[in-house]
Amino acid sequence: MRARAPASAANLGPGFDVLALAVDRYVEVDIEPAGRLVVRAEGEGAELADDAGHLAARVAISVVGHDRLSITVRSEIPVARGLGSSAALSVAAAAAAGSKDPLSVAARVEGHPENAAASVVGGLVAATMVRGAVRAVRLPFDTGLGLVAVVPDRPLPTARARQVLPQQVARADATFNLGRMALLLAGLADRALLVKEATEDRLHQDYRMPLFPEAPQLLARFAGAGSLAACWSGAGPTLLGLCDGGDTGRVCAEMEKGLADAGVPGQVLVLRPDLEGLVVDAL
Amino acid sequence: MRARAPASAANLGPGFDVLALAVDRYVEVDIEPAGRLVVRAEGEGAELADDAGHLAARVAISVVGHDRLSITVRSEIPVARGLGSSAALSVAAAAAAGSKDPLSVAARVEGHPENAAASVVGGLVAATMVRGAVRAVRLPFDTGLGLVAVVPDRPLPTARARQVLPQQVARADATFNLGRMALLLAGLADRALLVKEATEDRLHQDYRMPLFPEAPQLLARFAGAGSLAACWSGAGPTLLGLCDGGDTGRVCAEMEKGLADAGVPGQVLVLRPDLEGLVVDAL
Repeated sequence: MRARAPASAANLGPGFDVLALAVDRYVEVDIEPAGRLVVRAEGEGAELADDAGHLAARVAISVVGHDRLSITVRSEIPVARGLGSSAALSVAAAAAAGSKDPLSVAARVEGHPENAAASVVGGLVAATMVRGAVRAVRLPFDTGLGLVAVVPDRPLPTARARQVLPQQVARADATFNLGRMALLLAGLADRALLVKEATEDRLHQDYRMPLFPEAPQLLARFAGAGSLAACWSGAGPTLLGLCDGGDTGRVCAEMEKGLADAGVPGQVLVLRPDLEGLVVDAL
Repeated sequence: MRARAPASAANLGPGFDVLALAVDRYVEVDIEPAGRLVVRAEGEGAELADDAGHLAARVAISVVGHDRLSITVRSEIPVARGLGSSAALSVAAAAAAGSKDPLSVAARVEGHPENAAASVVGGLVAATMVRGAVRAVRLPFDTGLGLVAVVPDRPLPTARARQVLPQQVARADATFNLGRMALLLAGLADRALLVKEATEDRLHQDYRMPLFPEAPQLLARFAGAGSLAACWSGAGPTLLGLCDGGDTGRVCAEMEKGLADAGVPGQVLVLRPDLEGLVVDAL
């Protein structure tokens, strides 16, 4: 079977471990019966392939219960940049291996379900665990919004980005994020309501700044470049600007200058929301 | 001037200090020039009237800058029950006194803006403070939802309900509420998506249970009575069941039995969402 899943930008500021938006960079996985395990990988993350240790192999083997599989992975999603590459790969590998519930398989791999939910459902989703099962809901997204992603040439493993977070937070910070998330959901449903404060966060972004010291300067640059709001994508280091669809070219050009001025090697991508999510075909 | 404002149910479970829903119980305030301050009050809260100390008088005097006013208050909103009576009264009094921004006036009185925002805007709102100013957004609400409120004959002053809350919370509880609030907003926009877990909360409801020990039993009864979900209204002690509009009569009858079985004196109200918010007329 062949399955294709989109990348995703999680958290989006205040929606920590809950919100994610599917975007139009994809990973495609083909899985066929074979005499023994063979993994071929092309594109992003190809250098990580080592057969049984490859994430796609581990997921597929857990689904089918044996390793007599030929697995081909083609990915456009940069690895360890905060674009949900492992969730998308897990979803696609589980589906290509024949899983009826690739979302649960991928959420188990990830430990939290929002990236995987976006990769399965497409569009803007909220996902959370309810009695041990993933519950995901699609939320309205204004397709007049454009997305510009600053993707540094610098991996930031999620595990490391999670270690820096405190176990306890001020109640006021918890309610701050609830308020900002409500403003964000209103603004993502109707960009006329999107204000730059809607992506403010007190649960993760500030704690992660030491891992990417140029982030505040680049986030501020998004505002100057004409974005409506900007935030970290997932655990970073990718930063995401939300802007009027007509402004993406200008914002992209400005942020290329911004990256150069900050001395950060990387690329700037204009992304569109993916509204299809997971697509599965018989080979 | 005459102004009328609706009551509201705040928090709705996970949306602590952020969400509120305007409901069809009203306070109306008339204010006219007079030789000296006179406050007349009818209906709910009438026993609280003491001229200069009355909340409507304090708000009106702060707006006009003097106390030569005749103020008449007629209220259907039970006081100190978690139905936003003081926010509604503040909004109506500020507007009847001629304030151009009754929401800010009322949010200052309350210390948090969500009840006042619902009383001004109507419907389901999220409100939070952004750089010292209230920012409120209206959110989609499925008018096929019915509301049943259990209102105990027992005041629970908000100040006391707030004292029991811890200043620090687990980060996992903060993200728990973010996830539940997203599920709740999806379910309030489309009742087909509303699940009982959507009103679960870890920031306030459990801490407040000792102030109203029968609450867990009554919340469980809502589920048995056919509600889709149930929660505290504001700081309590009112409890709110969200149900299919066609089920309100049955849920109301069941909850009357539930109150009797729990030995809690009180009333059960079938409420409708108010979609108009603040209405101001010249007298």
